[in-house]
Amino acid sequence: MTFGEATAVRPAGEGTWAAEVAPGWDIAGNANGGYLLAIAGRALVAATGRPDPASVTAHYLAPGAPGPVTVDTAVVRAGRRFATGSGLLRREDGTPLLAVLGSFTDLAAQPAEGTPERVHAGPPALPPPRSCVLVEATDTFPPPFMGRVELRLHPEDAGFAGTEPSGRALVRGWFRLPDDEPVDSLALLLAVDAFPPTVFNARLPVAWTPTLELTAHVRARPAPGWLRCSFRTRFVTGGFLEEDGEVWDDTGRLVAQSRQLALLPRG
Amino acid sequence: MTFGEATAVRPAGEGTWAAEVAPGWDIAGNANGGYLLAIAGRALVAATGRPDPASVTAHYLAPGAPGPVTVDTAVVRAGRRFATGSGLLRREDGTPLLAVLGSFTDLAAQPAEGTPERVHAGPPALPPPRSCVLVEATDTFPPPFMGRVELRLHPEDAGFAGTEPSGRALVRGWFRLPDDEPVDSLALLLAVDAFPPTVFNARLPVAWTPTLELTAHVRARPAPGWLRCSFRTRFVTGGFLEEDGEVWDDTGRLVAQSRQLALLPRG
Repeated sequence: MTFGEATAVRPAGEGTWAAEVAPGWDIAGNANGGYLLAIAGRALVAATGRPDPASVTAHYLAPGAPGPVTVDTAVVRAGRRFATGSGLLRREDGTPLLAVLGSFTDLAAQPAEGTPERVHAGPPALPPPRSCVLVEATDTFPPPFMGRVELRLHPEDAGFAGTEPSGRALVRGWFRLPDDEPVDSLALLLAVDAFPPTVFNARLPVAWTPTLELTAHVRARPAPGWLRCSFRTRFVTGGFLEEDGEVWDDTGRLVAQSRQLALLPRG
Repeated sequence: MTFGEATAVRPAGEGTWAAEVAPGWDIAGNANGGYLLAIAGRALVAATGRPDPASVTAHYLAPGAPGPVTVDTAVVRAGRRFATGSGLLRREDGTPLLAVLGSFTDLAAQPAEGTPERVHAGPPALPPPRSCVLVEATDTFPPPFMGRVELRLHPEDAGFAGTEPSGRALVRGWFRLPDDEPVDSLALLLAVDAFPPTVFNARLPVAWTPTLELTAHVRARPAPGWLRCSFRTRFVTGGFLEEDGEVWDDTGRLVAQSRQLALLPRG
């Protein structure tokens, strides 16, 4: 099953879309947050009639298991360039899993000629994918979800899976979809939540960091090929941590930024 | 009129709150985005019964002028630690100005003892407030809004107001409310959008950068005193730019992070 198939939505009433959380997209039984966001994003693309998210935010309300879901959408403004909509993704029993707010657009139609560009950082330096560390799915750890995406981790950032974490809250690596499925702007919502948590490398005494909120900005549709990604945490304080992501395409263009606010489980 | 008074909300029906966009909080006639977000935030505090935003996102739909507004709120989940709600702030004629989604909590109740802390950056180095550049309100530029907050800019980052911008998309400075009004967690939503745009220092040919979306994470209620703030832009590309903010309190604690996605006006 492709990413496109696993995130498909179909009309199910006025502003409501039906979808399936497919099996195998989980970590310890809970569907990956970026995958759930991509389902909600696809419903909002359908609701707004705009093909691409420009900025989309999800608040995670409850873990998602495989099975039928619905997304109730509302378009709050439809302008010339952007349309803004909200969505609520629920399990069949009505339990809300994900609340979403986003502005959608047609990224192929922008920017206009002459718009200034000024970029003060480049993609992360990575060894070629064949020299990076493949994360392969298992029934437990690494989780089944790792069979749905292709990740190759920077060897310096893959120590958490072995014996020697780097000590830095940094994860860098390559991302693509299996079988050369193109990465569209909705698959970027998956990419920004596909990597292992940064704190796994930070020698912090935590086994998981549940996401409270994730925001992704999509700057452009990616060119074909591998994506270079980096995720970094600078502030573990107040019981929270942020994880800042950048995604660059094969032409060296920044295609997405993300930030999530995650929780440190109480000791 | 204090910030607290200028953001007050009163019940106006099931899940609906009435407020006034007060005069003098504008830039060129449009109310400051952080000020509008604080009004919506106060409605969501009332709706959720939780005193503090943990993460709140606003999408800006139309400019706001002084006058009556309403905020329609919906609580999508009320958990033990967090409650998540959405809000739509509208003008009296029904025009939506701001769509908001946020998770609220009681920051005084966290974190638990023993939660790890690990902070990899400190507050910006700033000369004392008396040696920084006061931004005083005028009828046009600096805008009237500057009379509602007290800003002292780092001298290196205040050149845009004179003749020689620094060339860096960076703005650092001090923030407080006038007359020693305490900065609560809702006033942090104001602080993260109170400074001049970073691109004013970057020698980019733009006179304004309208905000599409702003997300603020609040880590803690600030201690009394001046706040140290920094705002930075690294990626002006695809017709968009991000502006990343950090706010630190007088004890040296990170109290808020923010990121906004703004638009480059087409040439």
